[in-house]
Amino acid sequence: MSVHSMQASDTIIALATPSGIGAIGVIRLSGPDAISLVNEVFHGKDLSVQHSHTIHFGTIRDGRHVLDEVLVSVFIGPKSYTRENVVEISTHGSPYIIESIIKLLIRKGARAANPGEFTLRAFLNGQLDLSQAEAVADLIASNSQASHQVAMQQMRGGFSSELQHLRDQLIHFASMIELELDFGEEDVEFANRDDLKALIYQINRILNKLIASFEQGNVMKNGVPVVIAGKPNVGKSTLLNALLNEERAIVSEIAGTTRDTVEDEMVIGGLRFRFIDTAGIRETEDIIEAKGVERTHEKIKQAKLIIYLIDPAQDIAEIKEQITYLGSLGIPFLTVMNKKDLVTSEFENQLSVISYHPITSGLSESSTERSSEDSGNRQETTDKRIIYISAKNKTGIEELKSEILRKVNLHAINTDDVLISNIRHLEALQKTQESLNRVLENIDNPVTSDFLAMDIKQALYYLGEITGQVTTDDLLETIFSKFCIGK
Amino acid sequence: MSVHSMQASDTIIALATPSGIGAIGVIRLSGPDAISLVNEVFHGKDLSVQHSHTIHFGTIRDGRHVLDEVLVSVFIGPKSYTRENVVEISTHGSPYIIESIIKLLIRKGARAANPGEFTLRAFLNGQLDLSQAEAVADLIASNSQASHQVAMQQMRGGFSSELQHLRDQLIHFASMIELELDFGEEDVEFANRDDLKALIYQINRILNKLIASFEQGNVMKNGVPVVIAGKPNVGKSTLLNALLNEERAIVSEIAGTTRDTVEDEMVIGGLRFRFIDTAGIRETEDIIEAKGVERTHEKIKQAKLIIYLIDPAQDIAEIKEQITYLGSLGIPFLTVMNKKDLVTSEFENQLSVISYHPITSGLSESSTERSSEDSGNRQETTDKRIIYISAKNKTGIEELKSEILRKVNLHAINTDDVLISNIRHLEALQKTQESLNRVLENIDNPVTSDFLAMDIKQALYYLGEITGQVTTDDLLETIFSKFCIGK
Repeated sequence: MSVHSMQASDTIIALATPSGIGAIGVIRLSGPDAISLVNEVFHGKDLSVQHSHTIHFGTIRDGRHVLDEVLVSVFIGPKSYTRENVVEISTHGSPYIIESIIKLLIRKGARAANPGEFTLRAFLNGQLDLSQAEAVADLIASNSQASHQVAMQQMRGGFSSELQHLRDQLIHFASMIELELDFGEEDVEFANRDDLKALIYQINRILNKLIASFEQGNVMKNGVPVVIAGKPNVGKSTLLNALLNEERAIVSEIAGTTRDTVEDEMVIGGLRFRFIDTAGIRETEDIIEAKGVERTHEKIKQAKLIIYLIDPAQDIAEIKEQITYLGSLGIPFLTVMNKKDLVTSEFENQLSVISYHPITSGLSESSTERSSEDSGNRQETTDKRIIYISAKNKTGIEELKSEILRKVNLHAINTDDVLISNIRHLEALQKTQESLNRVLENIDNPVTSDFLAMDIKQALYYLGEITGQVTTDDLLETIFSKFCIGK
Repeated sequence: MSVHSMQASDTIIALATPSGIGAIGVIRLSGPDAISLVNEVFHGKDLSVQHSHTIHFGTIRDGRHVLDEVLVSVFIGPKSYTRENVVEISTHGSPYIIESIIKLLIRKGARAANPGEFTLRAFLNGQLDLSQAEAVADLIASNSQASHQVAMQQMRGGFSSELQHLRDQLIHFASMIELELDFGEEDVEFANRDDLKALIYQINRILNKLIASFEQGNVMKNGVPVVIAGKPNVGKSTLLNALLNEERAIVSEIAGTTRDTVEDEMVIGGLRFRFIDTAGIRETEDIIEAKGVERTHEKIKQAKLIIYLIDPAQDIAEIKEQITYLGSLGIPFLTVMNKKDLVTSEFENQLSVISYHPITSGLSESSTERSSEDSGNRQETTDKRIIYISAKNKTGIEELKSEILRKVNLHAINTDDVLISNIRHLEALQKTQESLNRVLENIDNPVTSDFLAMDIKQALYYLGEITGQVTTDDLLETIFSKFCIGK
């Protein structure tokens, strides 16, 4: 089925609110017959003569059988989410009632909507560009301040507008060069090569910035993968619980909005952290001991942060060896001393002579961090520093959280920079850059001006894929099939 | 905390849609400051100057941070569910966003609503009487045509209006009799005793009808408890699956509205059947064999229907004995032959001579059934009849379903009669009747006219408890604490 062919001809219906029992449920219809279909089963005012953005009380009836007392919201296209006529029926939140009303309206001629079909229509009707439409799904899935911010910024078009401007300028050059080709042998030059180079340099700077933002955008959207490493019984799961418990208390504060918290995910400072389930985290096995095992190796390498948990019962030489090993992985890591109440001053003295070379990743090397006010000699010493906690007594947890955030560079969460977080966009931007680099290679060679036009058009194609000026049915289906029903 | 004191002074907030990820979520506020609070964080139009029942697009912001693009519905009291100012904020269905917006508005001065507090306010402000408010919760919980019908009828006031009329007439007599007491020794009679008797007879007829309707109303609301009895390996769980599978297919037809189906509940002909988990149903133990066990006995006695499942491998004498036992329980039951393909004609002949005395309960004895067109000699024979099915091949299942419905008297589902389904109402009606019966006992005795007035007032009190003219904080808290948050 071609997604393009779905456009506008029929009226779709779906439950827009989560399924389950609640105070209310909202059923949404969109399409040319949305208002007239609902009007057939609605008893109250005549919906066909109402203004847009008005709400009407009445009953939905199947014959003489009253299905529910409802509030009906009328949106007259193009002043609606999809730019079509849209009706939202606010019912009592009984799955039985919702199902009965949806079935009734399907019998009257509506069609059950596919996942994301409302937003697909919004895109096809020009309400949103493709990257904005994708951001709607990201926004719904957002579960932390960071993921919310990335999605909201993309939905509100910060990302698209930057691209649109570049694209317009490239189109200008493409048409000039095409014009040159039309003149064939005459060796005219409508497109000033120096201007084109300057534009490509400018575009490349922006592309570089966007491509470079992916690592951060991706972490903000998908969370920071963390490994807690340490010997058995050093207190790994107690630490995880100490970090989790506080989060849970916050979440359950607002009754009714409690969500299913995945056991080993938590939000710290607006950023979601995903604890990677290596053998060493949940079971009492030691991932450091098992460092020869390839699978554990691979898991550790997915981490953007390693928390190396030790306790005072451990051998100092062993700790030193393991720190050297973890330091060699090139992943930011924190050394955390658990059971701090048991640390003797002798042990502490011995520890203090441990020295290793801090290895930092791109994330913690950002200029924002370097320029922060207390960064003077702190950068020098922090990675050698050991954080003292007691997971059991919940002391030192706040300091640990601050250090975790510092390691992954919290500053960036409050950035106004445009960030990309979607792998599809990353690939399109990279392909755009490859095409533009070919343009630069050929630009001073008159023999290859055919390629010049082709490569600029290729770059335009990839840019257009992001915002949806260029689409295929496959692409659209791939994108929108990931949406929830009703959006 | 007194529920009365909560009235109208503050503004409450809650998520009104089920928690979880969905296309949209709806946050509801009610109270004097509902509009002005939202207006503080809403960027778009000025909400304070909008008409009631209008919808406005804009953003919710926490400082400069955009939390979401939303649609805000404005309802100006008394034209709202609670008769107070009400605002509904339709957000993207991300739990993170919903939580952020609720927290923001609580910071601005709203209070997290208690369960049922919106409906409590609707009751306290005279929008609904108490039995209608209770019906709102029943409506949300309704999960079959029958439970939906009972709740809808009650919410739309059919029940209350009948009581209100009786109550008004009684109040008239109460005041007349009080007046007589004021005149003390003078032996005047303002309240005509014959008229009062006639009224009480009339009221008693209605009370009897309502009280008698409870069994049916309760079954329609809570479902029919069913026991499937039978020897091990006779196919009990295969039968349950055969009945369930069809139901599941229907439920999952409308994507997005699929609800969690409890393994052993199903809807047949609009009526919910709950299969009681006796030892004999799930395990391969035989509840008939275990009839000496008191606990199993008790479970069987909760049933409103017993399905006695047999197969052709069983001993005829044993079947006969068990039918006799089940027949003696006074609960409607059906004898069902599974594995009908294996039934020999000899076995069938032997079976056909089985005869037992059908014992029917109130449910299947109703006049509706007797007067149904095919009831002539069918009533006589049906209870002896054996239904042949193959649970495995799913043959005979439809016929079985029809028989199940006939046994519990489906006719009543489509009744227009007022039915009560709430045990609280049943008790209040019974107490009303007791008080009125005391009135009748004392009515012709001039010595006891003090009691007369007292008993009439007692009756009025109990009637008033149903509709909420008489309430206590305890009663209200008991009722509304069972509601979901946001309603």
